[in-house]
Amino acid sequence: MIMTNKKVADLVSDKGILMVLSGPSGVGKGTVCAALRKSTNDLVYSVSATTREPRQGEVDGVNYFFRTKEQFLQMIADDELLEWAEYVGNYYGTPRYFVEEVLASGKDIILEIEVQGALKVKHKFPEGVFTFLLPPSLDELQNRIETRGTESEESIRNRMSVAKAEMRLLEHYDYAIVNDEVEAACRRIQSILVAERCRQERVLHKIKKWMDEV
Amino acid sequence: MIMTNKKVADLVSDKGILMVLSGPSGVGKGTVCAALRKSTNDLVYSVSATTREPRQGEVDGVNYFFRTKEQFLQMIADDELLEWAEYVGNYYGTPRYFVEEVLASGKDIILEIEVQGALKVKHKFPEGVFTFLLPPSLDELQNRIETRGTESEESIRNRMSVAKAEMRLLEHYDYAIVNDEVEAACRRIQSILVAERCRQERVLHKIKKWMDEV
Repeated sequence: MIMTNKKVADLVSDKGILMVLSGPSGVGKGTVCAALRKSTNDLVYSVSATTREPRQGEVDGVNYFFRTKEQFLQMIADDELLEWAEYVGNYYGTPRYFVEEVLASGKDIILEIEVQGALKVKHKFPEGVFTFLLPPSLDELQNRIETRGTESEESIRNRMSVAKAEMRLLEHYDYAIVNDEVEAACRRIQSILVAERCRQERVLHKIKKWMDEV
Repeated sequence: MIMTNKKVADLVSDKGILMVLSGPSGVGKGTVCAALRKSTNDLVYSVSATTREPRQGEVDGVNYFFRTKEQFLQMIADDELLEWAEYVGNYYGTPRYFVEEVLASGKDIILEIEVQGALKVKHKFPEGVFTFLLPPSLDELQNRIETRGTESEESIRNRMSVAKAEMRLLEHYDYAIVNDEVEAACRRIQSILVAERCRQERVLHKIKKWMDEV
């Protein structure tokens, strides 16, 4: 027998996981991501590219990759973005190379994104893990939108209707977690990352190659 | 809107998970299961049915369901076993009703079983979660078999050859975890249980039904 002493652990987890965290507006994606950032050392946050001007204190490559409109359009043409959208005259998108660099280094990366954007990412990067954040109840979602205090009654009705339509897109996701409590939601996401690293589909080819060698 | 205050959490996790833990002889299934039993309150251990005589201190329904040969054969005829096998003149099997009762109560249940038995369970209970325990290396597996000290050199060679054949059946499993350290293996199994409860396929029908009501 040759190479019987090769460590199986080295075969199992050499590449990171792209975790796409999505869900309706108001569900608390940002809060959960901020809590994860505090509690999880090895998780990298996806940095978006944008054509908007940097605000004071924002650093290129940390807060955003700041690009000119020409550069951004070239990235679209070169298929360098996992998704992109225009918002109030500026472009925003997820650079594929940044995600792939982090994954190749063995670290996991999390991308916080609205529901339509997540589905675009899935189209270009189906090996990602797509997690849908659900509100504890629709009443609670409405509370969360209302307590922001910035929206008219009509706008709130409209957001609730969009949220319900988005929740029907759950079937395109891999996991659904309830954001009843931020720490509990974080623990579930961390468990999903651990479990996904152990999924047979992610390790089988390496184990098979190893078995062929021994 | 009716029932908007219904808690999504109630919809998400009402049924338990059958975790089938398998892997080659010597990999440490029993040690991992014993450690899980200590550290996890809500996890129930599958009790086997057998025709062998109870040993001193063994309790019916706790260590085994003790059955006569006639009763056991009737269970086979009635398709009441998820798998069964004969070993040294006695029958052993996994009663379906016990597993289903535990799952219906909302608790998870773990079944520790050798590789062939696990594949039989998968045939009858595909909604189970099938986890394959891998040794840290083949050398380490051989060490573990040798340190039992009860086997001849030929028997060890034979077991190693069976183990390698069994590892090639990994593709029929959902997860592969390395038993490098018992506590780490337990944490991975616990993470898999948390993640599986959040899988979209397990919650979608409930969320959809709920969405149709609001």
